[in-house]
Amino acid sequence: MQDVEAIEKRVRASFERQALMALIGARLVSVGRGAADIKLDFRKDLTQQGGVLHAGVVTSILDSACGYASLTMMPEASEVVSVEFKVNLLRPAEGDAFLAEGRVLKAGRTLSVVRGDAYADSAKGRALVATMLATMMRIEPK
Amino acid sequence: MQDVEAIEKRVRASFERQALMALIGARLVSVGRGAADIKLDFRKDLTQQGGVLHAGVVTSILDSACGYASLTMMPEASEVVSVEFKVNLLRPAEGDAFLAEGRVLKAGRTLSVVRGDAYADSAKGRALVATMLATMMRIEPK
Amino acid sequence: MQDVEAIEKRVRASFERQALMALIGARLVSVGRGAADIKLDFRKDLTQQGGVLHAGVVTSILDSACGYASLTMMPEASEVVSVEFKVNLLRPAEGDAFLAEGRVLKAGRTLSVVRGDAYADSAKGRALVATMLATMMRIEPK
Amino acid sequence: MQDVEAIEKRVRASFERQALMALIGARLVSVGRGAADIKLDFRKDLTQQGGVLHAGVVTSILDSACGYASLTMMPEASEVVSVEFKVNLLRPAEGDAFLAEGRVLKAGRTLSVVRGDAYADSAKGRALVATMLATMMRIEPK
Repeated sequence: MQDVEAIEKRVRASFERQALMALIGARLVSVGRGAADIKLDFRKDLTQQGGVLHAGVVTSILDSACGYASLTMMPEASEVVSVEFKVNLLRPAEGDAFLAEGRVLKAGRTLSVVRGDAYADSAKGRALVATMLATMMRIEPK
Repeated sequence: MQDVEAIEKRVRASFERQALMALIGARLVSVGRGAADIKLDFRKDLTQQGGVLHAGVVTSILDSACGYASLTMMPEASEVVSVEFKVNLLRPAEGDAFLAEGRVLKAGRTLSVVRGDAYADSAKGRALVATMLATMMRIEPK
Repeated sequence: MQDVEAIEKRVRASFERQALMALIGARLVSVGRGAADIKLDFRKDLTQQGGVLHAGVVTSILDSACGYASLTMMPEASEVVSVEFKVNLLRPAEGDAFLAEGRVLKAGRTLSVVRGDAYADSAKGRALVATMLATMMRIEPK
Repeated sequence: MQDVEAIEKRVRASFERQALMALIGARLVSVGRGAADIKLDFRKDLTQQGGVLHAGVVTSILDSACGYASLTMMPEASEVVSVEFKVNLLRPAEGDAFLAEGRVLKAGRTLSVVRGDAYADSAKGRALVATMLATMMRIEPK
């Protein structure tokens, strides 16, 4: 098994290639074995009609967090793709900043099951705004 | 029940306020009773690490299409929020343009169940790349 | 590719080994390429607290229908297991008889995506009561 | 707010009316604020073709556990119905006994989001075999 530094380096290299993360201003703030955290600041151009973060943006950072959490448990020369995910939106995604935490529930040889939680930070404190349950798949690089 | 023109006008007004749709270049191309279609051109800044459309972008246009499909079946002074959705990613989202179709399966007084299909158009033709099953909720405007 | 009769025979043999289907009285009524239908008569011992079919029973026949629909598209010496599924319950499952239809959306080498619809038949006609979106996985027999 | 004893009494009365739970031999073993646990012993007539517990049975006890967990947070004269759920099946449901734990993530006025985990107990110890993410809805009794 690789050491944590090597894993983080590999995950960061892949994250850098996710152009969408740059577009929306998302940063990979933490990587560990079976875990990855992504942060995002509120921006008006990321909202839905009511002025809060669009569910698609919440899903984007949850999906990347869950995908990279699962990648940390895979052999070195692996790529990860999302098979499917489900998101429950618990509260309006209101806040100044958002945190998406991906945590592996089960790391399999081919498939991994990952849970993701998205929090909003505001003057009122931190609130859980969405939760994801996802299946990620390891693929051999071409 | 409102006529279709009034419904489309109302849906378009709400879509215009979804700043994320402008950021990613998504257009509402069709609205009918229980249906809404959104189009998106490929752009490099919307991709994941493998160079295809990020699952979060696919989800964003599916979510908006499903939400607006359900809004067309609601009383005039309604707003819609996403309760939850599940997305299965069937193939890599490779193509020049993408179409998200939202279709209402069941319109309820409070909750609606909506199916969404996302297609990729390329030189090889049209391919179904993702499918969504979503629950949308009617809320009274504040 | 096997002929349809051989596929049906293989699916029926597996269905016969699903003891739960016998317990609840479910019958495999139709098998085709990418499709499997299961019927169930209403019984009082299959209900939830309100007297209608328990969501777990609706899910049981949908899961088996979706699993066998995907098995029809797999090589001869394959077994199928459910990876995950999502079920939306559209209406109370009230009726004299129920039909679960499994239909393959995408048959992959390892994973298949399958849609399932459950209908209730009553004096009022046929009503869609639930819909499933499932991921099934091919495994090599031991 | 009701006291815990009153809540448990109300939940038990509803569970007793779920005929399916009696058919499969499931018992409500614990009820608390936002929590409900159900146990089930392995029986051969609850299996799928491979001899392990059918995913529909795992879902049945998870659904009831999640529904009753949410009912504990609702006003006294409420009924609960399942809106939708998603289940990821992490491992074959092999064991002598099974435990389904329902835990409320968010209790809303109309909708609640509930997580459910299902464990298998065997000579090898306890293993997480499935996890559910569900939406439950409060309805006024007729």
